[in-house]
Amino acid sequence: MTENQSDVDHSYAVILAGGYGERFWPASTSRRPKQLLSLLGGRTMLEMAVDRLSGLIPPERVIVLTSQDLVGPTIALSPDLPTKNIIGEPCRRDTAAAVALGCAVVKARDPEAVFCVLTADHVMGDLELFRETLRSGMELARSESVLVTIGITPTEPSTGFGYVEAGEELEVSGPTRFRRATRFVEKPDLETAKAYVASGEFFWNSGMFIWSVTALTEAFVAYQPELAAMIESLVPVVDTAGFDHALAEAFDPLDKISIDYALMEKADNIVMAEGAFAWDDVGSWPAVASHLPTDGDGNVTIGQVVALDASHNIVLSQDRLTAIVGVVDLIVIHAGDATLICPKDRAQDVKKVVSMLRENPQWHGFT
Amino acid sequence: MTENQSDVDHSYAVILAGGYGERFWPASTSRRPKQLLSLLGGRTMLEMAVDRLSGLIPPERVIVLTSQDLVGPTIALSPDLPTKNIIGEPCRRDTAAAVALGCAVVKARDPEAVFCVLTADHVMGDLELFRETLRSGMELARSESVLVTIGITPTEPSTGFGYVEAGEELEVSGPTRFRRATRFVEKPDLETAKAYVASGEFFWNSGMFIWSVTALTEAFVAYQPELAAMIESLVPVVDTAGFDHALAEAFDPLDKISIDYALMEKADNIVMAEGAFAWDDVGSWPAVASHLPTDGDGNVTIGQVVALDASHNIVLSQDRLTAIVGVVDLIVIHAGDATLICPKDRAQDVKKVVSMLRENPQWHGFT
Repeated sequence: MTENQSDVDHSYAVILAGGYGERFWPASTSRRPKQLLSLLGGRTMLEMAVDRLSGLIPPERVIVLTSQDLVGPTIALSPDLPTKNIIGEPCRRDTAAAVALGCAVVKARDPEAVFCVLTADHVMGDLELFRETLRSGMELARSESVLVTIGITPTEPSTGFGYVEAGEELEVSGPTRFRRATRFVEKPDLETAKAYVASGEFFWNSGMFIWSVTALTEAFVAYQPELAAMIESLVPVVDTAGFDHALAEAFDPLDKISIDYALMEKADNIVMAEGAFAWDDVGSWPAVASHLPTDGDGNVTIGQVVALDASHNIVLSQDRLTAIVGVVDLIVIHAGDATLICPKDRAQDVKKVVSMLRENPQWHGFT
Repeated sequence: MTENQSDVDHSYAVILAGGYGERFWPASTSRRPKQLLSLLGGRTMLEMAVDRLSGLIPPERVIVLTSQDLVGPTIALSPDLPTKNIIGEPCRRDTAAAVALGCAVVKARDPEAVFCVLTADHVMGDLELFRETLRSGMELARSESVLVTIGITPTEPSTGFGYVEAGEELEVSGPTRFRRATRFVEKPDLETAKAYVASGEFFWNSGMFIWSVTALTEAFVAYQPELAAMIESLVPVVDTAGFDHALAEAFDPLDKISIDYALMEKADNIVMAEGAFAWDDVGSWPAVASHLPTDGDGNVTIGQVVALDASHNIVLSQDRLTAIVGVVDLIVIHAGDATLICPKDRAQDVKKVVSMLRENPQWHGFT
């Protein structure tokens, strides 16, 4: 790995980890959202995101962006990362502002850097292929002024993701294919999604990007001068006592726009790396359970669970015993001082419960 | 009430409260069985059984029989009763032995007493009528050498109770009818139960009895000399330091037989009092819920419960918040450090879960 490591010198990663827990309530809460849960074993989703970079980008060059009130919990649950690498956004300003903030931090530490923008709430497989995609993407971003987006080769006509349309292929040696990105489209209906997948020209928009500080800064100057100005104002104060104040001043007035809308749909130097590795956003309990082992009756159980004539349930029993009798396709989540019970096909409605609870002061402590 | 009270002087009650919690697990456990739960509000089932005697038999003349390991919890949860009135059976020897033990305690305190044998795990209505039935039953037992059993006027062809067949009516003044009991029958099948109810001659065997110490002792002498001997051996030591040892010596060798089998099916002086009051054994969570108020969607909830598109559920949420989404006809019981989830129509299978747990040392602490 030392060889690879030297290949990708000046390489950084910025992990966007600012989400609040809703679909995994009550396991996830506003104090411990999805990225800080160990949904799939002993490591948190965020730790797994850092682990995936092993041999490619060392923890000291991994920056985590989260919301300011999650900085404490994130530091506590990320012993592998330097404290100064965990940056709190003073308010929620969507992904364009977050990427600009990450760019400022990376630029201050290494103006010649290339960096990946990654997420903390996905499950991935084929990690060698994932790292190879990042490695060759960073190599491309180092040699050409391009903005690289990673498009995932779709395995089904999902209506849960946006898509990237890919055009002309670039002449780049190595196993990863790079193509011009010709269009970004929102989540399609099922018919459209089927047509996309059949065409072979559409890829899932993963929200992962690769670029050099230079190319990204140029794009901000061209299309989002306000964000470019923020980068310039922050670079001199990164890692100083004045940073938090300067960040709060700069962040608050920003518009909430996504990086897709802010840059990717506007710039003409967008390249899509084909991500042929396994990738799943595990956006619900059933999605998580599909990555976990089942008992003989198809139940996924974590903790002390006794099942009698019960099948295909998902039960997380933290700090207590749960007995299920005669139930099928149910989700039962005990965590902290709350319990959720809902059928698997209502897993998306967990967000509605969290909204109900957040609307009522009596229940605030539980979310 | 003073007038009634004087009518029934020498009156005692023996409440059989020795059951272990199974059908109400995890709210009920071996340390806190059904009779010690407040299933229907602030008072425990046992306290309600004592309260029902108000104006008829004062707490100082109410004896509670339970298992020895439940004496502590029963005393703790029965502040209205004198400690010396809560007697622990050293082992389980069925109802004949329990009634003989109760007889010994009552006889030692008042050889001229009449006493009712009552249960602690039923819900009753029409309490004035209940008390009138006891009052006139005790009056009869004081004047004649009879063994009175209370037969409940059936409201449906239940297959969950045994029945008493009633014959010739006695000439007794007052609102309560007394008839010769001609037969005791086990739980019938539905066809038989329907025929019983249609005949008007069959009544639910309530397990409640009324008799004088004298008449009961004579019956034991005639049909169960071993139990008669136990009574004679215990009477001199009741309320002395030697009682526990003598009881253990006497109780251990006894056969396990029911009072019905031991006396009621054998003696020829059995009288049935018609119990026309409401009586329910509330033997399962749905039976309990039928006595509690529902929300607009038919849910019975106790504690902090949030329901979204959920109807006709029974949720007891002790010390935590429970959110139910999109579920119907489900029982969810959180109590202590365990949770039960089962459909209403599997409520009887809770006993199976408790058996499973008791078979496995790993789970013993939860039952």
